[in-house]
Amino acid sequence: MPRNTLSFPSTSATQIEPYLPEPRDLARPLYPHVTLTYATSLDANLSLSPGVQTALSGPQSKAMTHFLRSKHAAILIGAGTAIADDPSLNCRIEGVGGYGGPGLNGQPRPVVLDAKGRWKVNEDNKVIKLAKEGRGLGPWVIGAQDTPPEDGRYKALTEAGGLYITLPTDSRGRFDWGDIFNILGTNGLFSVMVEGGGVVINELLSPRYIGLVDSVIVTIAPVWLGKDGVQVCPEERRNEGGVKMSVGRLKDVRWLPLGEDVVLCGRPGWQ
Amino acid sequence: MPRNTLSFPSTSATQIEPYLPEPRDLARPLYPHVTLTYATSLDANLSLSPGVQTALSGPQSKAMTHFLRSKHAAILIGAGTAIADDPSLNCRIEGVGGYGGPGLNGQPRPVVLDAKGRWKVNEDNKVIKLAKEGRGLGPWVIGAQDTPPEDGRYKALTEAGGLYITLPTDSRGRFDWGDIFNILGTNGLFSVMVEGGGVVINELLSPRYIGLVDSVIVTIAPVWLGKDGVQVCPEERRNEGGVKMSVGRLKDVRWLPLGEDVVLCGRPGWQ
Repeated sequence: MPRNTLSFPSTSATQIEPYLPEPRDLARPLYPHVTLTYATSLDANLSLSPGVQTALSGPQSKAMTHFLRSKHAAILIGAGTAIADDPSLNCRIEGVGGYGGPGLNGQPRPVVLDAKGRWKVNEDNKVIKLAKEGRGLGPWVIGAQDTPPEDGRYKALTEAGGLYITLPTDSRGRFDWGDIFNILGTNGLFSVMVEGGGVVINELLSPRYIGLVDSVIVTIAPVWLGKDGVQVCPEERRNEGGVKMSVGRLKDVRWLPLGEDVVLCGRPGWQ
Repeated sequence: MPRNTLSFPSTSATQIEPYLPEPRDLARPLYPHVTLTYATSLDANLSLSPGVQTALSGPQSKAMTHFLRSKHAAILIGAGTAIADDPSLNCRIEGVGGYGGPGLNGQPRPVVLDAKGRWKVNEDNKVIKLAKEGRGLGPWVIGAQDTPPEDGRYKALTEAGGLYITLPTDSRGRFDWGDIFNILGTNGLFSVMVEGGGVVINELLSPRYIGLVDSVIVTIAPVWLGKDGVQVCPEERRNEGGVKMSVGRLKDVRWLPLGEDVVLCGRPGWQ
């Protein structure tokens, strides 16, 4: 078993399980359970600056992230995070495939949103290396329908068992989140854990898209990063009279202290 | 006993007590224990907009705030909060003076920082009414030394048992926080709970002043307020090489779920 295998205590896992996807939701067979998850500082920053990976949460929170990954068919990030962090995007919990378990059992499918073709995926990316070593699935990249990639751009991707798929974009070059989750669901990914970064999270917390999210799991670390970081702060919301109101409140709330951090589990309670 | 008397469960109180002032710190007899406390949303907002009071935390958190007030000799806010909220600034925990207890026993001294003479305190302010009804102490206002107030400006204040005191300000019209705590300590206020608003909190979280803070108690509510609110986000910090770094991390951390909210207790761990 690789040295960096993680374990997550079952007492904590039991607390989080009500917010995780059921094995399969038969009421909506082709639409995935969506879990939105991220870690911030007390001043709601994901990182010190755009493109800078910032260690915020402790080892228990890291193990929790990998536990969550083991419970989802796919994990999704934006291209900015893929470029900045070169993330592994696999699951290292003890017992999944490549970490004590058979094959690729329990490994989530990495999905990278890249409407502007910014992520130059290649053999040096961790996610590609891990897929070739049999310790993770090859990533799927979702690109824009109107801008076909140059020849060979996704050679490393497909060689690692990944896939390049496309979706339409709007006039601002953005995907519709309904399209994203639909294409994942119809391709057999029945649960999606959205991990970031800032643009992705703030879009999904907006009134337009929050209805697509089933569960929210936020880790908060007892640190302040200060101004001009990458912040979780959705667009403001106003009522019909133009008066500013809160964007939304979680329901079914549970707070789980975990090492120095706290983990908040809840369900979006707004339309 | 007034109807709006609050009680705070002793099980929760026990969790918070290690972060509260000792009856008297003999090692520094004239300098107060400083507790910084505030409540934010998940996107680190104190309120929707400047000057707008926003209900964030639940009834248990409110009771905790009053429990904390009963444990401090003074509670301090900035003039902006005094103007926006017209706060009561007294303590309504069962057993303190005016709420089942004798005299003004356990009532904290309200202190309002007003370097620019913005708060027009008068008989209609809640804090003045409560002082006259024997359910709170008359407030102290700290003004700037160079700008003496017009005659009669603080008549309502002094009639309610309050006091107008002055301190020097810097070229930007700001007090030095060392001066503020010194003048409170030398006037017998051996513990100060700082309650807000945004300007006050962000100043005290800065590297220059955080050394004056003994305990931090933050309530977080499971809500997002959205952009352009009043945010807790201190000035950024850079190391000698000019590289941005985190402003600071709490030590001796404890997370206490309280109703739908969570309460974070800790001590500043940075210089």
